[in-house]
Amino acid sequence: MNDEIKLNCPVPIGDHATVQLAHGGGGRMMKNLIEGIFLPAFGESSSSPTTGGGTGRASGTRTLQPPVPHDAAVLPVPGTGGASGTQSGTRLAFTTDSFVVNPLFFPGGDIGELAVYGTVNDLAMAGAVPAWLSAGFLLEEGFSLELLRRIVESMAAAARAAGVRIVTGDTKVVDRGKADGVFINTSGIGWVPEGVEISPERVEPGDVILLSGDLGRHGMAVMSVREGLRFESDLESDCAPLAGLVEAMLAAGGTEVHCLRDLTRGGLAAALNEIASDARAGIEIDESAVPVTEPVASACELLGLDPLYVANEGRLVAFVSPASADRVLAAMHAHPAAIGPVRIGVVTDAHTGLVELCGPFGPGRILDLLSGEQMPRIC
Amino acid sequence: MNDEIKLNCPVPIGDHATVQLAHGGGGRMMKNLIEGIFLPAFGESSSSPTTGGGTGRASGTRTLQPPVPHDAAVLPVPGTGGASGTQSGTRLAFTTDSFVVNPLFFPGGDIGELAVYGTVNDLAMAGAVPAWLSAGFLLEEGFSLELLRRIVESMAAAARAAGVRIVTGDTKVVDRGKADGVFINTSGIGWVPEGVEISPERVEPGDVILLSGDLGRHGMAVMSVREGLRFESDLESDCAPLAGLVEAMLAAGGTEVHCLRDLTRGGLAAALNEIASDARAGIEIDESAVPVTEPVASACELLGLDPLYVANEGRLVAFVSPASADRVLAAMHAHPAAIGPVRIGVVTDAHTGLVELCGPFGPGRILDLLSGEQMPRIC
Repeated sequence: MNDEIKLNCPVPIGDHATVQLAHGGGGRMMKNLIEGIFLPAFGESSSSPTTGGGTGRASGTRTLQPPVPHDAAVLPVPGTGGASGTQSGTRLAFTTDSFVVNPLFFPGGDIGELAVYGTVNDLAMAGAVPAWLSAGFLLEEGFSLELLRRIVESMAAAARAAGVRIVTGDTKVVDRGKADGVFINTSGIGWVPEGVEISPERVEPGDVILLSGDLGRHGMAVMSVREGLRFESDLESDCAPLAGLVEAMLAAGGTEVHCLRDLTRGGLAAALNEIASDARAGIEIDESAVPVTEPVASACELLGLDPLYVANEGRLVAFVSPASADRVLAAMHAHPAAIGPVRIGVVTDAHTGLVELCGPFGPGRILDLLSGEQMPRIC
Repeated sequence: MNDEIKLNCPVPIGDHATVQLAHGGGGRMMKNLIEGIFLPAFGESSSSPTTGGGTGRASGTRTLQPPVPHDAAVLPVPGTGGASGTQSGTRLAFTTDSFVVNPLFFPGGDIGELAVYGTVNDLAMAGAVPAWLSAGFLLEEGFSLELLRRIVESMAAAARAAGVRIVTGDTKVVDRGKADGVFINTSGIGWVPEGVEISPERVEPGDVILLSGDLGRHGMAVMSVREGLRFESDLESDCAPLAGLVEAMLAAGGTEVHCLRDLTRGGLAAALNEIASDARAGIEIDESAVPVTEPVASACELLGLDPLYVANEGRLVAFVSPASADRVLAAMHAHPAAIGPVRIGVVTDAHTGLVELCGPFGPGRILDLLSGEQMPRIC
């Protein structure tokens, strides 16, 4: 490192001066990292979203969004009417995600599939129809070219399955020992259909919370390989594209679909906490309604993990108006990407910002954000 | 690694079964990697660019471009007239780049600046006005949060200087020893103004080749730190945004500006060879016209490097019609991002696909692609 670097006083982010694994876990420490370092630098205009035209070139950018992981920015395309402040112009969704999963191949998927579906799903959660992806490969010297070919072919197949095109790419190689085989970044562009408005800000008391399927498969499939557990045949990742499901839900619920979130790092708990916080709403979840399969439950018990915090790669929660809930749930049931969808809770105007688990005997424990995550390098 | 993985016969890419540093160098081995692995998987429709509507969702995608590093895909925005095959619709440029430079801070810049300007410049080389960037951080456990803050602030300043917004982001953390401090991916979106058509396919015999400034500063600035050479004060990276310069050149030359390329990995030699190959044209360069400063020349001599192959981060070549060359060159002279711009050569209909260096005594040696690159992890 350049010896000209002069360190100022160390800046504790949650009492740390260096990066911890938990900073990448989707929990409280990642939130602190984003709010402590990224937002002050990149999000400076987020408090005055209508002044975005000030920098000249980027005059189309009116809704600067903070760099929140697993979120897509929705931006008006200049010259299509979107800049006038109405919703009538063409709106683009833009998102990015890096993938560092270990191992690269796991039951039910691999890093290539994950890299495509992860970004496709982030676009879908903004209500966008995914269109184009970029692919940035970071390779370690000595990595097998045959494995690389398999991963690339898996990405191509996943892109076909999700109806997107990989249109631009980049490859960098670092010396042996300075990476771990292959890391992949995908960024994606999609189009938000007219009238679609998906955002935590639209969540309101009374909204019904729908979950698209059983929890914890992806995290436990990866962990089963890493820990050498031998129930892999029963434990496959749920890794799947969700854009088609979202399209079906929007067709059924229209503007009554208020908010969507896929359940990745930090699992259902992280997703609900983020939305409760962003929407300034209370959330009540019926714990007994949340589906967890027997193999996932057993593996979680064995490893001392809570399935509510385990990562998924093919599940979403939806916040919909009470009037539309049955319609949207029926549309989910009819779509193959929803595996036993259920109603799991409601939004309340009590305990703002908190997620409460309710059991058969009424309200119970608060479902909090973890500090970090239970399992690093799950995606 | 999952022991279920079964390797088929190893696939030699330039006689290698594993990734070599040279696969990331911008030379022949990277070309082989792209043509051997990425294009067969991702570029399947590139030979039939008008059939892109077949996959339904991505029906706006008509010009699928192969994932060539340091290149932006230009894509029509659906519903704006671009899908009809004319150039009248809104066109978007999309590109991605990962940054792994070592050291992270070097004379004249740092990885954050590089990550912003590199992607801004890739957009500009498609004639696009850069608008939005994503930022994907890949952090090694134990990396200093104070250094991360400095890098992020440098990115924010660079984005302001280039007139773009960082609108979405992602952070992943990998365990100690599995990365090298910080890697950054930026992807970018820009808008291609109506009538602008920048492409190697537009290069034709007689075109004049203009270079925007002296060569080799970025590569030698990085190498000077890595090799512990003590002439750093004279050797600063040329790292700079080029979008404003391109705008000025297009204002002066209009459609007479045929092709643009920034000189990154593999330097001037790689850029010219790529264009000669893609344009199926011959290129003749007057070696004595190519500016190299004394500190760069000395450092190159000391390290046994050829400045024509050394990476730059703030230089471009332009292929323009003979009639417009003086006008475009004058516009370059008037812009601060061009540092002593010059005419360095012409396009011929002889020796198709080759770059020939001409000296005072006429034609001389062929300027070939290197196999890899002289210096890994320069960007």
